[in-house]
Amino acid sequence: MSILDFVLGRRLLNREYRRRRIGAFEGVPAMGLDGIGSSSYGPEAALAILIPLGALGPGYIGWIMAPIVLLLLILFASYWQTIRAYPNNGGSYIVAKDNLGPYASLLAAAALMIDYVLNVAVGISAGVGALVSAIPTLHPYMLALCLGVLVLIALVNLRGTPDAGRLFALPTYVYIASLLVVLAIGIVKALTSGGHPQPVVAPPHLPPATEAIGIWLVLRAFASGCTAMTGVEAVSNGMSAFREPPVRYGHRTLSAIVLTLGVLLVGIAYLVQVFGIGAMDQSKPEYRSVLSQLAAAAVGQGALYYVAIGSLLCVLTLSATTSFVDFPRLCRLIAQDDYLPRPFAIAGRRLVFSVGIIYLAVTAGLLLFAFGGITDRLIPLFAIGAFLTFTISQSGMMVHWRRAIRQAQSARERSSHQMHFWINATGATTTGAALIVIVIAKFTEGAWITILMIPCVIALLLVIHRYYARIAAETRADPLDLHDTRPPVLLVAVQEWNRLAEKALRLATTLSPDVIAVHLSELTGPQAEERGKFLKARWRRDVEEPAAAAGVPAPQLMVLPAARRAIHEPILKLVDKLEERFGTRRVVVLVPEIVKRRWYQHLLHAHHAWQLRRQLVLHAGSRVTIMNVPWYVD
Amino acid sequence: MSILDFVLGRRLLNREYRRRRIGAFEGVPAMGLDGIGSSSYGPEAALAILIPLGALGPGYIGWIMAPIVLLLLILFASYWQTIRAYPNNGGSYIVAKDNLGPYASLLAAAALMIDYVLNVAVGISAGVGALVSAIPTLHPYMLALCLGVLVLIALVNLRGTPDAGRLFALPTYVYIASLLVVLAIGIVKALTSGGHPQPVVAPPHLPPATEAIGIWLVLRAFASGCTAMTGVEAVSNGMSAFREPPVRYGHRTLSAIVLTLGVLLVGIAYLVQVFGIGAMDQSKPEYRSVLSQLAAAAVGQGALYYVAIGSLLCVLTLSATTSFVDFPRLCRLIAQDDYLPRPFAIAGRRLVFSVGIIYLAVTAGLLLFAFGGITDRLIPLFAIGAFLTFTISQSGMMVHWRRAIRQAQSARERSSHQMHFWINATGATTTGAALIVIVIAKFTEGAWITILMIPCVIALLLVIHRYYARIAAETRADPLDLHDTRPPVLLVAVQEWNRLAEKALRLATTLSPDVIAVHLSELTGPQAEERGKFLKARWRRDVEEPAAAAGVPAPQLMVLPAARRAIHEPILKLVDKLEERFGTRRVVVLVPEIVKRRWYQHLLHAHHAWQLRRQLVLHAGSRVTIMNVPWYVD
Repeated sequence: MSILDFVLGRRLLNREYRRRRIGAFEGVPAMGLDGIGSSSYGPEAALAILIPLGALGPGYIGWIMAPIVLLLLILFASYWQTIRAYPNNGGSYIVAKDNLGPYASLLAAAALMIDYVLNVAVGISAGVGALVSAIPTLHPYMLALCLGVLVLIALVNLRGTPDAGRLFALPTYVYIASLLVVLAIGIVKALTSGGHPQPVVAPPHLPPATEAIGIWLVLRAFASGCTAMTGVEAVSNGMSAFREPPVRYGHRTLSAIVLTLGVLLVGIAYLVQVFGIGAMDQSKPEYRSVLSQLAAAAVGQGALYYVAIGSLLCVLTLSATTSFVDFPRLCRLIAQDDYLPRPFAIAGRRLVFSVGIIYLAVTAGLLLFAFGGITDRLIPLFAIGAFLTFTISQSGMMVHWRRAIRQAQSARERSSHQMHFWINATGATTTGAALIVIVIAKFTEGAWITILMIPCVIALLLVIHRYYARIAAETRADPLDLHDTRPPVLLVAVQEWNRLAEKALRLATTLSPDVIAVHLSELTGPQAEERGKFLKARWRRDVEEPAAAAGVPAPQLMVLPAARRAIHEPILKLVDKLEERFGTRRVVVLVPEIVKRRWYQHLLHAHHAWQLRRQLVLHAGSRVTIMNVPWYVD
Repeated sequence: MSILDFVLGRRLLNREYRRRRIGAFEGVPAMGLDGIGSSSYGPEAALAILIPLGALGPGYIGWIMAPIVLLLLILFASYWQTIRAYPNNGGSYIVAKDNLGPYASLLAAAALMIDYVLNVAVGISAGVGALVSAIPTLHPYMLALCLGVLVLIALVNLRGTPDAGRLFALPTYVYIASLLVVLAIGIVKALTSGGHPQPVVAPPHLPPATEAIGIWLVLRAFASGCTAMTGVEAVSNGMSAFREPPVRYGHRTLSAIVLTLGVLLVGIAYLVQVFGIGAMDQSKPEYRSVLSQLAAAAVGQGALYYVAIGSLLCVLTLSATTSFVDFPRLCRLIAQDDYLPRPFAIAGRRLVFSVGIIYLAVTAGLLLFAFGGITDRLIPLFAIGAFLTFTISQSGMMVHWRRAIRQAQSARERSSHQMHFWINATGATTTGAALIVIVIAKFTEGAWITILMIPCVIALLLVIHRYYARIAAETRADPLDLHDTRPPVLLVAVQEWNRLAEKALRLATTLSPDVIAVHLSELTGPQAEERGKFLKARWRRDVEEPAAAAGVPAPQLMVLPAARRAIHEPILKLVDKLEERFGTRRVVVLVPEIVKRRWYQHLLHAHHAWQLRRQLVLHAGSRVTIMNVPWYVD
């Protein structure tokens, strides 16, 4: 256990659990990493679609990013309201459950779960992509780096990240500050040179156009670019972490995140255009990320470049942490509603929901492995979950405001709620429209995988729910039934007459007047007879004589042949026979066992006791109860 | 379980165990495979040492093989006697234990165990070597082929090989017949051509000599060639398999094996010399085994060639089966003497000692892996174990005859025993001398590994023995102590009031008047209080009221906080507190548990019951006993 203590930290007490009480300063890194990190892969994903336009591609980026920034502002207004309406937890699962009923909440749950897994995979692969751009010799190890970072993040989160906000503040603010400086320098250069600045390091020459611009291309680029908005919902999920009054700090955090993200997106779009920067294929060794090309063009590959790219790497990999914090909490909520296995709701040694963390790490790892750690291949799967979540959440809020309008006391209140309704309605409509665009544009590129997964996940959740419902119905308690007060018949499994058997027999005699010792003989022929005789002789001397001396009935010894070496079978036969003698009385089988406290003991002892217990539990039926009598070796 | 049934066969009944009752015809394949198979790698191993002599090397093979064949005859005479003296099992472990005491028997055990593992590795690698010679395109897959064959043989042996003798008869006799025909044709050609026959397919040209002949080279070649004798002891180990009278069939089998082996060795040595065949490096793709070159030279690569090489492959790989049959039996004997873990002595589902088979397969697999599946690298490790076994066995027989001489009734009997004594003395001396030669000649080539392993294995056996001796001393039984007849205090772990809890509580009330229900609360704060109140209300209604109605004392409910979610801690504290109230009475903890009969149930339920049981068993000390109360979901 000391290895676990070292890796994961000591087991925490329940009372050490503290709801994090953070403000906007810690809120931005804790909940905004995902959103702000999206600024790096959103524009790049859009540019990747524009590659066939060649050198003309970057010129169209403004047309793609403008509706995205607009959508961002609509989402901002929508979530502003969600935060006010749900100051404790305004995640889509809760909002949908409250307003749209269980099936919509399951749809939200499925979308969110898939989204979180993809967020981890995309965040890490984009972060490693940034690293590989800066240090191209690492390119062959991309997948290994992705998986290594994943394991590291999973371990950190298994330890628990109570101070994640403060820990993550440094890279987040360094990233924002350095990227803003890079963008500012680039923009100043562009403006002073009349829109045609000289790049410090020229971006790679773009290939000739192979396609003309068309509506389909624009839609696909928009759909890819929409990934820039993922993570905006994190604040509403994490409301329980804010200090009083949470709504104020939630609003401040949301504003800071959206403002930063918006400025970054606009700045990046502008500079991509003026420097003529295109996306490159991440699977090729000469790959450079868009932000890496942009920073190099604006300020050269000096200290500022490495600070910006280094902090971006941190931000992206840490953005996976946002999922690692939120996913297990979501799973716990779902598990408490009996839609996920119970272990998801059990706090582990560090008071985090370890099962959820491990599950997230494993599925994200499989995804990274399946897609070779290439961001570009994961992007088409990604945006669907996020936009489905947005749409469900906004629709839920619409129902919420409709109810509020009906229950409103004054005309002023009613008109205020009406405004809220229309804001969320705009949000729901636009994100819904964007969702449709994304589904159509990305369907063949991989979106079908997500679309296929969602009903599968929902089906699984429903099956799990039905199982628990059945168990609950079967175990619903009656009042205690005290009619049958006859003590059970006790069977003591005796391998040989030793102190284990003596201890078990002694205990048995205090529990019931009807005790039968059972010796299972695995041998056949003369050896078995000899051993049986020996045991019976000892029984006379060591059991029957002391019992006679004490004036109590001596426990009977029965020697049963274990024909198939399946040691439970003869006991079950005996139980059936006992029914004739003792009627329907319960049967308790006492199994003496040497307690194995060291690993080598597991190799040195036959696991008869374990086997007998397991076989009896599986086959004996509800009349038989098993009792372990432990024996400790000093 | 149906997969296991398919792969390993159904579980056999004890009475289906039959000691194999075989005669000499089945005896030769069952026990001679190892010995007869040695004819293929023994001469090759000697020739491999002679490689530096170049084209002169094959000329010296007669000088190497002559003393080996002589030694074989001495061994024949020695084992003839062992078989008569030990008609049930004359393995070196038994002979040493009977005559030389426990330490010599441990030396024999260690040597035999190492020898069996090496025999599997060498047999399989030589067999695959033969295959690769015939089909050179398979050369890159040599190691994979070795491991595949190993897994196959292990599986066959886990199924049990009751008819191994008859099954293996075909390839064995085909090999003997075809090789004898090949040798006969070759010898006739050699004699009719005046000792210089024209090879049908000329063996590869031998490289020029890089060394002159010397005593050191001859000794090393002799040491390697001695591997041709391994497996001769198998008949004495397998005596229990022969039908009545075993001595007669044992003698016949031994004679057939030794005669065949001797004729093959002499014939091979002669033809190697006249055709000028040398050994080749097995790790090179152009490798051809000596027998393959010889057969091709004598009869060409026609049908007979492929029959001979094909049956050789079978014989060699099946020769590993000899080890798989004998090793688990040996381990069982050692385990019954408490020198190996008990599981080695447990008959598995097919009445074979599965643990021994699995252990042998794993260690042989590791060995093949470590040495790349190259026979030549394994040979130096091999002969030591076999010759150490020979020497110990013969020395044991010397003591046996000395005792017989002392106890002899008549002069005639005495002189007969004296003759026996001198035969075994010759055997012990010559095999001992050969052992010394092998140790010296092979020390740096790998024999040191075996020499190092033997004391390690003996030390391990002694440590295991000491552990069992300690356990036996600690658990030695006293007569049943009936002084303390007070019933134990029963604690019932209650997660919530359901039918599991009701069943456990009902059982508890029939066992002891002192029953306390314990609810462990993992929650803190208002939620915990609420739940506690709810449970207490149900307790009043469903437990206390029925108890009052029945006029019996109601079990008390205690709600304990589980501060660290380590559910045993509060129970242990309670046990300590109970001591004040109930004195030193025993405590039984009843743990209700849903029986998980399907795999998915293990995922869907928290393993509280399992955890509680494990933690209590590990930490609670001998006063506490755990009782499982199973609940079956229909």
